[in-house]
Amino acid sequence: MRRLCIHTITTKPWSTEECIRNYSRAGAGGITFWRYNLEGRDPAAVGRQAREAGLEVTSLCRGGFFPASTAQDRQKALDDNRRCIEEAHALGAPLIVLVCGAVPGQPLDESRKQITEGIAAVLPEAEAAGVRLGIEPLHPMYADDRSAVNTMRQANDICDALGSPQMLGIAADVYHIWWDPELKEQIALTAERGRLFAFHICDWRTPTTDLLNDRGLMGEGCIPIRQISEWVDAAGFQGAREVEIFSSRWWSQDQHEWLEKITEAYRALYEIPAGA
Amino acid sequence: MRRLCIHTITTKPWSTEECIRNYSRAGAGGITFWRYNLEGRDPAAVGRQAREAGLEVTSLCRGGFFPASTAQDRQKALDDNRRCIEEAHALGAPLIVLVCGAVPGQPLDESRKQITEGIAAVLPEAEAAGVRLGIEPLHPMYADDRSAVNTMRQANDICDALGSPQMLGIAADVYHIWWDPELKEQIALTAERGRLFAFHICDWRTPTTDLLNDRGLMGEGCIPIRQISEWVDAAGFQGAREVEIFSSRWWSQDQHEWLEKITEAYRALYEIPAGA
Repeated sequence: MRRLCIHTITTKPWSTEECIRNYSRAGAGGITFWRYNLEGRDPAAVGRQAREAGLEVTSLCRGGFFPASTAQDRQKALDDNRRCIEEAHALGAPLIVLVCGAVPGQPLDESRKQITEGIAAVLPEAEAAGVRLGIEPLHPMYADDRSAVNTMRQANDICDALGSPQMLGIAADVYHIWWDPELKEQIALTAERGRLFAFHICDWRTPTTDLLNDRGLMGEGCIPIRQISEWVDAAGFQGAREVEIFSSRWWSQDQHEWLEKITEAYRALYEIPAGA
Repeated sequence: MRRLCIHTITTKPWSTEECIRNYSRAGAGGITFWRYNLEGRDPAAVGRQAREAGLEVTSLCRGGFFPASTAQDRQKALDDNRRCIEEAHALGAPLIVLVCGAVPGQPLDESRKQITEGIAAVLPEAEAAGVRLGIEPLHPMYADDRSAVNTMRQANDICDALGSPQMLGIAADVYHIWWDPELKEQIALTAERGRLFAFHICDWRTPTTDLLNDRGLMGEGCIPIRQISEWVDAAGFQGAREVEIFSSRWWSQDQHEWLEKITEAYRALYEIPAGA
């Protein structure tokens, strides 16, 4: 259960404080904050509160969105990523997850170029703050406006292009990459290069009724999560398994019952006996 | 305008006869029928009617859906594909588009194996009937239950695995493949191997509100259709550009006005002067 981390957006109706209290009670080992959790709060205090509750702060979601059609907007994105790095540092989060961005109608290779440049620009601040950056490849259905990085291979290419800095790596989310025929090899390669920084889990429902907010709980869909987890572990990854589920359906339910379902599904998936 | 072909499902509210009459009047060169168009009709008569109206019958949609969890259901799929081949032959359609299928929870490589076996099983009938089979790679968001073939590379791999029979090739639809970083190379390779059989166009809307029925008219979205068309033409493709748009939004409008918008968008895209 120590490897179970929960993303606060998974229980979106809860406040920052409710997330900390309830995840801790549920026996989770870690918490990944979203930036909205820090609004109007002192990030250092939030981090302290989480650690006092026995939770590791796994990461901060999210930076990125580097591409834009004007230089001015790309500069704004850099400024925002620098603020994100400061927040992560204060929070005590060792990692920022990057949803890299895309501009509808702009060629994807141009967006990837802007992403590479954007990461290069903020890497020095990340290094100075001791905060790692994890590129999250997003499912190709988000290539229009969320990310021009849609496969592990493309994320690895960007890390390679930047000279494989140690602070730059990849956040692998089963939702985005489960269909990729190269997945097993790319997971191994990512780990081999010391850049498998995070592992996110959820499931893909059939039918999926909304492109954004209809993700499933592990077991509700078709993703071979156990198989992918085995590849990730076999590659030497020992970090958290982060439950990140956007679901209007689940958000409309009682969040305590929902959290219970999450821990049950997690135990079932990784064959953890009750009480452990 | 001779290269403009329209899929009957694009104007779903219309009967088979209305599609033929109105596409012909609009100056289209071809029509792709869907199998529901043949229900209760003599396929040979439908084909004759289309040709008499000056329309080439471009293809029949769709065969495929080979994978299944039981041998019995896989046999049913073969039977259905054989009926589809007979229908295409009677209709005078030189091509069947294959949406290859997938079974939620079944490993994708197992589904691809079943797809390869399924195609191999029906190829002799296709050859005997003079009907080509075109594998349509589907966007990875359909990998759960519609197709385990999600890239041009995977489709090419299946053609190669079957010994590159001349009757087997690929139907390339911009909606499914526009995001693929290998797209340009794969289009060239597909054409080089003599298996670029069809080219479908539409657009990807931002935001897309439904995974199935929210496709856009060319120009309404972010797909670089002109760029991809240039690659396709540069590879030597001289066939139809087939407009295939599933859209609850457009289906709810007056279909005559909708058809007019389609021909306008097509002319604008390929810079065809009015009257041509």
